[in-house]
Amino acid sequence: MIKKNIFTFSLLATVTLFGAACTANKHNGMDSAEVNVSKPKNIIMVVADGMGPAYTTAYRLYKDDPNTPMIELTALDAFLIGTAQTYPASVSGYVTDSAASATALAAGIKTYNGAIGLDVDKQSVESVLQRAKKLGKRTGVAVTSQIVHATPAAYVAHNESRRNYNEIADSFLDDRINDKNVVDVMLGGGWSYFIRDDRNLVEEFKTLGYQYAASYTDLLSLPKGKPTLGLFADVGLPKALDDVNPHRLSVLTESAISHLENVNGYFLLVEASQVDWAGHANDIASAMGEMEDLEQTIKMLKSYVDQHPDTLVVLTADHSTGGLTIGADGDYRWSPEFIQNMKASVTVMSEKIIDSEDMTLYVEDVFGFALNEDEKNIISGISSSMSGRERESILKSLLDKRTNTGWTTSGHTGVDVEVYAFGAGAQAFAGNLNNIDIAKKIFAFLGDAE
Amino acid sequence: MIKKNIFTFSLLATVTLFGAACTANKHNGMDSAEVNVSKPKNIIMVVADGMGPAYTTAYRLYKDDPNTPMIELTALDAFLIGTAQTYPASVSGYVTDSAASATALAAGIKTYNGAIGLDVDKQSVESVLQRAKKLGKRTGVAVTSQIVHATPAAYVAHNESRRNYNEIADSFLDDRINDKNVVDVMLGGGWSYFIRDDRNLVEEFKTLGYQYAASYTDLLSLPKGKPTLGLFADVGLPKALDDVNPHRLSVLTESAISHLENVNGYFLLVEASQVDWAGHANDIASAMGEMEDLEQTIKMLKSYVDQHPDTLVVLTADHSTGGLTIGADGDYRWSPEFIQNMKASVTVMSEKIIDSEDMTLYVEDVFGFALNEDEKNIISGISSSMSGRERESILKSLLDKRTNTGWTTSGHTGVDVEVYAFGAGAQAFAGNLNNIDIAKKIFAFLGDAE
Repeated sequence: MIKKNIFTFSLLATVTLFGAACTANKHNGMDSAEVNVSKPKNIIMVVADGMGPAYTTAYRLYKDDPNTPMIELTALDAFLIGTAQTYPASVSGYVTDSAASATALAAGIKTYNGAIGLDVDKQSVESVLQRAKKLGKRTGVAVTSQIVHATPAAYVAHNESRRNYNEIADSFLDDRINDKNVVDVMLGGGWSYFIRDDRNLVEEFKTLGYQYAASYTDLLSLPKGKPTLGLFADVGLPKALDDVNPHRLSVLTESAISHLENVNGYFLLVEASQVDWAGHANDIASAMGEMEDLEQTIKMLKSYVDQHPDTLVVLTADHSTGGLTIGADGDYRWSPEFIQNMKASVTVMSEKIIDSEDMTLYVEDVFGFALNEDEKNIISGISSSMSGRERESILKSLLDKRTNTGWTTSGHTGVDVEVYAFGAGAQAFAGNLNNIDIAKKIFAFLGDAE
Repeated sequence: MIKKNIFTFSLLATVTLFGAACTANKHNGMDSAEVNVSKPKNIIMVVADGMGPAYTTAYRLYKDDPNTPMIELTALDAFLIGTAQTYPASVSGYVTDSAASATALAAGIKTYNGAIGLDVDKQSVESVLQRAKKLGKRTGVAVTSQIVHATPAAYVAHNESRRNYNEIADSFLDDRINDKNVVDVMLGGGWSYFIRDDRNLVEEFKTLGYQYAASYTDLLSLPKGKPTLGLFADVGLPKALDDVNPHRLSVLTESAISHLENVNGYFLLVEASQVDWAGHANDIASAMGEMEDLEQTIKMLKSYVDQHPDTLVVLTADHSTGGLTIGADGDYRWSPEFIQNMKASVTVMSEKIIDSEDMTLYVEDVFGFALNEDEKNIISGISSSMSGRERESILKSLLDKRTNTGWTTSGHTGVDVEVYAFGAGAQAFAGNLNNIDIAKKIFAFLGDAE
């Protein structure tokens, strides 16, 4: 089928395409054809919690080199392949929470806000991670939240409420597929849920043959290719801006892969969990810090896929958070230069400022720019009688005004999110998808369990 | 080059693909290959001014049938193919206005905010419409703003300021390519710029052989295939919610095509201009009304492309406006049902309410739902001593609260916008593009002028 007015572009390409290409052409009335898609051996699903479209654009601007006329692309941009709808089951309206959207991404079904691996009738639904385990693949999670937080939990466990962290932690150990634990590698935060008065799950995991790390340094010294539990904080990890390694997600992801690699392949869930937390807090500096850790992770994964082309990486968000906008209040301006040199998060600052000898000098040092008179007056009004949250709010307002950042909510919004993919089978994720389609496409790659 | 682990999907597809597919595979280390792209004879560029990602999602939710478990797709969704960066030349920062972004989309260069078809040095730059004219194609614009507004102006004229409407109108008539007017078909608003004390451009166009229509009805009665000027309002057209035909963009576009079709093909710029105006006004009901007219236009164009597969349609936005968010104030809710039955815009309501016998009953009738006691008290506080803008603001606030809609600005924001494409050559627009790439790809399809 050659049309009359065809002309030829010389481009890097392959016949192993489908998705948006075919979606578009399906509507163009083109002929039917067989299209091959590489089936991945390893699947790495990356969820950037809360990362709506404003975050990915803001991050590109945040990383811009102002000495060049064009804005530099991020490591994500080249892999933009489509968008995804995020709404939950109709019982929860149009704006999802992270549990319902994680269950959608993990299991391919719409459920109610708060549900972990359950449908609207509270029946368990299989996740792609669980299917992978049934098929003899290794499985892992590497996240910056506690590992029992909504997104990783929805891939591993089943619970009627995301808030039941202890029950979910128990599931991580107690649930079995083929007489084995569901997850082989677990890296993130969560001591408080795993080392409890009533139960010490860390010791139980060790008894089952898991090696354990309680620091990033310990993690790097462990033998490769083994069942591994790594917990590095009571709840979530420190914010990227405050952590000993601002690129800790990249480290955890690389480590997870080193333990997961095997002849049968693996499924790994990676979550940049705290983009969402920065959004809930309306904290633009932390949001960009978490995005930077995500970008580092994607760069690392790109190098990995270059060496392991049988691996698929899909990156999306579960929803957008905070109603972030690039520009606000009628002003055609966004000025990320004021958050590019932060030495700590506003959360840490809100505590340390009380003990500083000179609050203005302290803030100027940590922010990395000189305050104007109005700002000095605002900062000098900070006192130890305020709550930490109040002090933090003052610091955030100052940065929002400097950067001209807008927010509309402490919660989530309903906007479609971006989808990025590279490696084997990436084209399957092209076009505008429903979030449940992402799980369905991964199930199709995995195939049926016996 | 067949990989070991290939499996086959039977799908509608074609070999005439490039773009995101190739972008992704370029990074996958696949082999180089020749990829064919259909070259379009006719090109229809649709700009939905101000339509950021929140608008396209909000519109899908607005059109949802709550009696079905899943949310119905819009006519746009199947054609989502990527996203576009919108920033202007660095002299104007990171947030574009409609003139700079229209010049980017039209001419493929970054310029300063306010520039119409000029670069940062105020030198004229050729637009794709002007190139098409040089190549012997017919050209047209069909918009819901005045036809000399920033977006259409950037395709037709050159001026240092978008505000010089009269000069731009003069250019529409005075500028010549191959001894002919630049534009063959002009449909939209703008009497006040074309029929002035100092010059009557309508009469001059008639002298040059253009037929003229001053109403939608007149337009439909004109002979097809002729140079045509249609002006239907002093400035912009009435809002979709208030116009005699809420789908007037679809009517204008279909009419434009009927005058443009010829053996050499045509370039048509279509603009859903007032999505942006609704965004500036933070008017969610009008935003959805304008989106509905856009969707109707896309449906019509899809039918047209089905019959004329040598036609390319590309739809994108020039930027997002208003900082619209789907949900606000910590509430995980968006409730479009409260704006689905509006009988008039809040702008018209703000005038008519003064003359109504019972303001509450009037508002309930036009909104289509019963007000609660708090809302009745608010409405009863409206008076003729307030400005129209104040009255309108009260009505908008009420709807924002009912729908739980968020806004952050009366201006633009910097978020990437979506790109949709179908028809011949559509795949060229896949992936994350810079807005200037859209013009460059259209120039490549058009080819060089003699």
